[in-house]
Amino acid sequence: MLQMDYLSINEKGRLSMKGHDLIDISEKFGTPIYIMNEKSIRNSCKKFVNAINKYYDSKGLVLFASKSLNCKEICKIINEENMGIDVVSGGELYTAIKANFPMSKVHFHGNNKTPEELHLAINSGVGRIVVDNEEELKMLNNIAQDKNKICNILLRIKPGVDAHTHEFIKTGRVDSKFGITMKEGITLLENIQRFKNINFMGFHCHIGSQILDSRPFILAASIMVEFISKVKSKTGLSTQELNLGGGFGIQYTENDKYLDYDKCIKEVSIEIKEKCEDLKLNIPYMYIEPGRSIVGSAGITLYKIGNIKKIPGIRTYVAIDGSMADNPRHIMYGSEYTVINASKANIKPNKLVTIAGKCCESGDIISEDVLLADPEVDDIIAILCTGAYNYSMASNYNRTLKPPILMINKNKLKTIVKRQSLEDLISLDI
Amino acid sequence: MLQMDYLSINEKGRLSMKGHDLIDISEKFGTPIYIMNEKSIRNSCKKFVNAINKYYDSKGLVLFASKSLNCKEICKIINEENMGIDVVSGGELYTAIKANFPMSKVHFHGNNKTPEELHLAINSGVGRIVVDNEEELKMLNNIAQDKNKICNILLRIKPGVDAHTHEFIKTGRVDSKFGITMKEGITLLENIQRFKNINFMGFHCHIGSQILDSRPFILAASIMVEFISKVKSKTGLSTQELNLGGGFGIQYTENDKYLDYDKCIKEVSIEIKEKCEDLKLNIPYMYIEPGRSIVGSAGITLYKIGNIKKIPGIRTYVAIDGSMADNPRHIMYGSEYTVINASKANIKPNKLVTIAGKCCESGDIISEDVLLADPEVDDIIAILCTGAYNYSMASNYNRTLKPPILMINKNKLKTIVKRQSLEDLISLDI
Repeated sequence: MLQMDYLSINEKGRLSMKGHDLIDISEKFGTPIYIMNEKSIRNSCKKFVNAINKYYDSKGLVLFASKSLNCKEICKIINEENMGIDVVSGGELYTAIKANFPMSKVHFHGNNKTPEELHLAINSGVGRIVVDNEEELKMLNNIAQDKNKICNILLRIKPGVDAHTHEFIKTGRVDSKFGITMKEGITLLENIQRFKNINFMGFHCHIGSQILDSRPFILAASIMVEFISKVKSKTGLSTQELNLGGGFGIQYTENDKYLDYDKCIKEVSIEIKEKCEDLKLNIPYMYIEPGRSIVGSAGITLYKIGNIKKIPGIRTYVAIDGSMADNPRHIMYGSEYTVINASKANIKPNKLVTIAGKCCESGDIISEDVLLADPEVDDIIAILCTGAYNYSMASNYNRTLKPPILMINKNKLKTIVKRQSLEDLISLDI
Repeated sequence: MLQMDYLSINEKGRLSMKGHDLIDISEKFGTPIYIMNEKSIRNSCKKFVNAINKYYDSKGLVLFASKSLNCKEICKIINEENMGIDVVSGGELYTAIKANFPMSKVHFHGNNKTPEELHLAINSGVGRIVVDNEEELKMLNNIAQDKNKICNILLRIKPGVDAHTHEFIKTGRVDSKFGITMKEGITLLENIQRFKNINFMGFHCHIGSQILDSRPFILAASIMVEFISKVKSKTGLSTQELNLGGGFGIQYTENDKYLDYDKCIKEVSIEIKEKCEDLKLNIPYMYIEPGRSIVGSAGITLYKIGNIKKIPGIRTYVAIDGSMADNPRHIMYGSEYTVINASKANIKPNKLVTIAGKCCESGDIISEDVLLADPEVDDIIAILCTGAYNYSMASNYNRTLKPPILMINKNKLKTIVKRQSLEDLISLDI
């Protein structure tokens, strides 16, 4: 269920992760706490890497979209899995640098990179800078010129594919702060030789987030190959690389469809290869950027129940010791989650409840109307699939402390990000 | 306009704060940056304090709702303005402690206080613990008993007033994670003597946020006084204190109504006094908890424009060097702001634009469809009224760095919260 085979129910009827009783862990390490399963992360990495090798003849690189979860240990694992990384800020790049990540396998993204970030990117030797627009290209060229460096770039293109509509194509997606249109791209490339310190390698596109259907990926690939052909005929430029971005969805609840990544990469690979043959193009080197699909299902959050408020005829609030500060996805996107009473994992979920956070804000809800097995005060509940966009989006709202991240790998427990302390909280206050 | 009389246009046509050219400041201190006007904070404090003194015969205390903005310097200012403070977590309490805030003037809130937080609250001697529910009351009594302490408490009651509906009253507001109903309150108080280490002082209620109409406040006050009368007749208990919470709104844009705080407090005071006379009750000591209305309009954020993307027939994106990470209010609540091109403050706003952040997320918008004077790359723009719920809600999403807070008071510039550094960002990574 939900691709979380690392969870099971032990002899005490409690939820456990690969033999580790999660109630024991909550007692030892405290709550709230993010817990990641290392094997699950590595398996997801391998799934994408193997698919590229198998269906695309190893002519590609999987880049981890580190905005989903970035810390030094994650960078190390990604490197060990022979992947690259995509970073979207100086902070993400800095983290990768400090984790000794090989910079040639880093792609630097962003719709508004600052000069400081471009300096850092060039100085550290990132593999590709994904240029968002002409203004940025000029700035990058100038900075590179000053440093006497040549920058390998991809150009971010709006493919006009919206994965979140029924028809997948909406010209409305031109309404985006990211990238330039295909027409603008061609105009820019017609004069690319003006930019002496820029080496054009190819294109980047990205069609959305949490996509659970392979068809928009195939469509985007198809459109991009046609575009590559058009660029060739209009400008004479050959495109060596194609970065198709990310957006591969995960199952947060059983209502979510299952996207088979292997099949998806297979179909995309076939589409690109066939289309290139038709159009007499060299097959471009491919990049894809899974983030959520690498770490999302690999993480859970444990919270302790503090009180239960039954409002007759209305709803039952189960208040936990975390909040929108450590998981803002419900208040931000209305996200739904699968919730398990880890203390009573052997009991069939039977009570309809709403999981409320401890922030002083009525919208501070983690999940609405979920079934939970006989919730009682001090029970430990697990919110599943919180490996992505939870720690990375965490705030100190209400001056709560950011929870730690604990990594579990077989019989090893390892804290990879420490719990924030009260001293940390005021460390910047003067 | 927008109660921000500390802003003006200087001889260079630039926005300035009390004589300080904001473009110069952006160059000296960098962007993004939060800038607060100390006088404005103090004036707002005085407005509430004076209103209580004038209309309620000084029988009350204004508590700053520190969840809106909490740091040591703000605590110090609040103390100097003879106010108390309301805290909603151990972290907020810890900040107040470290700012040497007088603990007797601290109210401790929360729908799910942890045992650790209650220990800290009792040990530090906070003035009132606002008890959310019976379960918490039991826990508090036990902890107080162990420490041989008596806790002065208020009981959080759902007054059934919803300030965000046209009729102001909705039984639906019983659907809240906060507090208990009046009926539950009476049942609990009938047996309050069971709790030997608890000293019942009165009630707390809170009707919502960003309210721009005095009528729901008056209605809530009225309902609470009637409730106090009912409590007296049913239990014999006299209620000494009434905390009416916060929710006083500010004008984010010119479309927002103006709430006259002085008039609002006057009307609420009259209502309470008259009702108490009618019902033959002693007039309770009053607390109110303004947060946003103290610091909201006192702060602005400065950003630099990085690029401008005109999408013909659709919209123009102005990309800034901040994001939803330092201001999540638009993505979270759809909030609107007033935006000024600080570099061209003397030019009438003439271009309809959308202010986009630099996070890799299409929803990362600060304000949609605002008029801006001839925006150009490197212009400094000011988002007004960001003093509340911006720094306090800031995250490190995309591993961006939290901006600093600069306080301006006449000819003095003072950093009150330092800018996060890249080292800070990875300080908890192992």
